Amino acid sequence: MERKSFAEMDCSVAQCLEVVGEWWSLLIVRDAFLGVTRFDEFQRRLGISRNVLHQRLDRLVDAGVLVKVPYSTKPPRSEYRLTPRGKDLWPVLTAMRQWGDQHAAPNGPPVSVVHTACGSSAPIDNVCSSCGARVTARDVAVVPGLGRPDGGVLGRRTRARATRA
Amino acid sequence: MERKSFAEMDCSVAQCLEVVGEWWSLLIVRDAFLGVTRFDEFQRRLGISRNVLHQRLDRLVDAGVLVKVPYSTKPPRSEYRLTPRGKDLWPVLTAMRQWGDQHAAPNGPPVSVVHTACGSSAPIDNVCSSCGARVTARDVAVVPGLGRPDGGVLGRRTRARATRA
Repeated sequence: MERKSFAEMDCSVAQCLEVVGEWWSLLIVRDAFLGVTRFDEFQRRLGISRNVLHQRLDRLVDAGVLVKVPYSTKPPRSEYRLTPRGKDLWPVLTAMRQWGDQHAAPNGPPVSVVHTACGSSAPIDNVCSSCGARVTARDVAVVPGLGRPDGGVLGRRTRARATRA
Repeated sequence: MERKSFAEMDCSVAQCLEVVGEWWSLLIVRDAFLGVTRFDEFQRRLGISRNVLHQRLDRLVDAGVLVKVPYSTKPPRSEYRLTPRGKDLWPVLTAMRQWGDQHAAPNGPPVSVVHTACGSSAPIDNVCSSCGARVTARDVAVVPGLGRPDGGVLGRRTRARATRA
């Protein structure tokens, strides 16, 4: 399996994957959103080796997604909490959960997410924050951004047709 | 690296990762959204070995995310197109792109996504499809879903506190 780093790619999707794209990382973040903070509980829930879990947690701490907070000095023990940067991953998990609910949950969604203010468990929608309209891939065009006026990831050929999937 | 399949996990995030969670897979899907259809163009843009690219494309075809469509008989050649199931991954890529734009694009976003109807490149927001309010992790509670009345991934301990991150 080829694991070339995505760090040098001039693409925000690649940068997000560089931080959370490793096998297990997003499930650790999912569990952190569900209130899990301690190593042993992550390990019990995910059923991975302690070694791999240590690596993944360390990497998420290094990337600023989790922060390690001591909760005991004798013995020295720490728990893992989401940082603001980690909490901003919620839309990623939501989008994945909704895709899985729609395409890979034949018996219905395993969990339901309730909007506490209105009490509804209706899906989360994507809307344009300017006009408020619901937006799908068909409603957008991709153009060079501020950080890459030459188009970067778009390339010469794709730029023209990077519109309606 | 531990690569245990997530297929048996009763969680829609895990099911989504089972389909697109391998290193490279989401960048292939990203390029498909940008209009790339042909093997050689994926390979040139991603810079991975032909062998790994073949494996990933085959897996995305098997998972129903891409479909292989012949475009030439002599020599036999096919291109890869997103299926409806694949197009439904757009919110996942959007959420990742926006996270990367916010947290890992010091010079500004490499690409800009324009809502063609209103012309704005303002961010895509997550809103409750029932009441229309903007929703973040803080605004939801996670409860057992139809497909898992006993709570499944939530577990006994996490169920009670799986609310406000």
